[in-house]
Amino acid sequence: MKALVYQGEGNKEWTEVADPVLRDSTDAIIRVDAVTICGTDLHILKGDVPTVTPGRILGHEAVGTVVEVGSAVDGFRPGDRVLASCISACGHCEYCRKGSYGQCRGGGGWILGHLIDGVQAEFARIPFADMSLHKLPATVSDEQAVLLADILPTSYEVGVRNGQVQPGDVVVIVGAGPIGLAAVLTARLYSPLHIIAVDKAESRREAAKQIGADITATPEDVAEILNAVTGGVGADVVMEAVGVPETFELCTKLVRPGGHVANIGVHGKPATLHLEDLWIRNITITTGLVDTFSTPTLLRMVAAGQLGSAQMVTHRFALENILEAYDVFSRPAQTGALKVVLSR
Amino acid sequence: MKALVYQGEGNKEWTEVADPVLRDSTDAIIRVDAVTICGTDLHILKGDVPTVTPGRILGHEAVGTVVEVGSAVDGFRPGDRVLASCISACGHCEYCRKGSYGQCRGGGGWILGHLIDGVQAEFARIPFADMSLHKLPATVSDEQAVLLADILPTSYEVGVRNGQVQPGDVVVIVGAGPIGLAAVLTARLYSPLHIIAVDKAESRREAAKQIGADITATPEDVAEILNAVTGGVGADVVMEAVGVPETFELCTKLVRPGGHVANIGVHGKPATLHLEDLWIRNITITTGLVDTFSTPTLLRMVAAGQLGSAQMVTHRFALENILEAYDVFSRPAQTGALKVVLSR
Repeated sequence: MKALVYQGEGNKEWTEVADPVLRDSTDAIIRVDAVTICGTDLHILKGDVPTVTPGRILGHEAVGTVVEVGSAVDGFRPGDRVLASCISACGHCEYCRKGSYGQCRGGGGWILGHLIDGVQAEFARIPFADMSLHKLPATVSDEQAVLLADILPTSYEVGVRNGQVQPGDVVVIVGAGPIGLAAVLTARLYSPLHIIAVDKAESRREAAKQIGADITATPEDVAEILNAVTGGVGADVVMEAVGVPETFELCTKLVRPGGHVANIGVHGKPATLHLEDLWIRNITITTGLVDTFSTPTLLRMVAAGQLGSAQMVTHRFALENILEAYDVFSRPAQTGALKVVLSR
Repeated sequence: MKALVYQGEGNKEWTEVADPVLRDSTDAIIRVDAVTICGTDLHILKGDVPTVTPGRILGHEAVGTVVEVGSAVDGFRPGDRVLASCISACGHCEYCRKGSYGQCRGGGGWILGHLIDGVQAEFARIPFADMSLHKLPATVSDEQAVLLADILPTSYEVGVRNGQVQPGDVVVIVGAGPIGLAAVLTARLYSPLHIIAVDKAESRREAAKQIGADITATPEDVAEILNAVTGGVGADVVMEAVGVPETFELCTKLVRPGGHVANIGVHGKPATLHLEDLWIRNITITTGLVDTFSTPTLLRMVAAGQLGSAQMVTHRFALENILEAYDVFSRPAQTGALKVVLSR
């Protein structure tokens, strides 16, 4: 089969590789019907995630059709249309028992396209299929579903829920790429008073307005705008959805005393934490990999039309044109790309 | 009267100043019967808290007797024996209404010995007396009570409760000075499996054992000891009770995925936050100034003998010998000082 293979920092190739095979009785093999590229894949290509080694097939967000299951797989049969979650989970370890599937110590967690081969390929092996796949209702399209593999639960769990967005809050979301936009979309579920979306790119600020931010700002003018909105107090919740030290440090300046900074971004470098200002301010900072405990709930909401996820898809490609898709996705300022979807 | 006056970085003086007078109808004047020195006072003298300006009377932990009250003070009369909390609270602002008294926006918060004159003096003015004073039962001694002005509620609220210590947890407390020891004492209330107290000084490790830590370690060997105890997973909760970048960074290395780092220390410098490791680990970092919402509860527990706070008092001085007390308190490695109490 063909797959997108990481060839070391800055390099990737769409190339012929061996078809995946069942290894454990809990595995399933899926045919990939739709797949997307994640900002995390760009971080990997930048060298920010050194646990990804050359030769690895990338990708952790797919919709597919089950073609084969191991003997211990209970809930799925060949022909089932499924969402393959970015998180695999053994379901049995101490972390899984607490719902912390992202931190699974039984061989799961974020492994697809990271520690094992991923789903930017014609076929893929999905470990722990009973915990890691979700059956898709016919009313949810591939495009809607593929956004549930990572960005919607990530923004919702790691941004909105870790940040503890409450009704009446003033919420700042720094970065209006796909993760930031999904944070805008899911923050609205808690009825904040204002959502201020911050991005350098005007096209992304505009996209944030379309999806539900009532105020937009640049990194340069957000402090002034926020001061005007909150009488100088600061934001109740600030989410970091970029993944560089500067944006993280901006978040810690915008948060009010007693407020929350929820980091969603994938970081490759340390940041400076200004404890000399923050020690006295009752700040809570959270980091996190998604657990995907919310995926069934979000899927139900998408199916019912409560969450309009597919509006983030700006570009569509055939799977074999994935290198072109990477190029478009990695130059959003020029291409206006948010999410790109590759299909068979 | 005589008072301990900050004279700029590194300098202080026990000197004659004007007696305090009522300024607002909600003020009380107390005669100071017992007062202590806080690690925060040493941070002030180091220049870590630039909001303290020369001429300020230091001190924010006292027991006293009410000598005069403003016309709006309802709950206190001259002659009442009282605890003066480190936090003053207007009781009316948005933060006070949520119990965030430390972040009071109505003129309170941590102001004593910081933004207004403090209690290392023969007399002191206490603003918002109805919210900032606590009547003391005769069964609670001055020494027991004075530890309730700051360190016990600080360690309990900012360390134990922000860190969300749970039964069965492995808890690491970095720094076994008075704040760290009070964290050991109050962490025990939640029945953790292990409390590992970390300090460079053997005398402080020994004090931590006396007060309830079952394991002690140095900053150099704690990682190895923790790995042995947790099978390499890390601590559920790590508290920072020193206030320098190195110890904060150590805390973020010791915490398990999904665990909590509760910063209690007063910091004068930024720390490095290794987001390149932490973004994926579901860490929660909290900072905080105490709110003292727990003071009435802790006072009840001390009165009933459930909390043996006074065992932290190692040295006693007459109030006029406060400079000697500062000298002893600031050289704990030589003097073995934990808390020093100055009395009339």
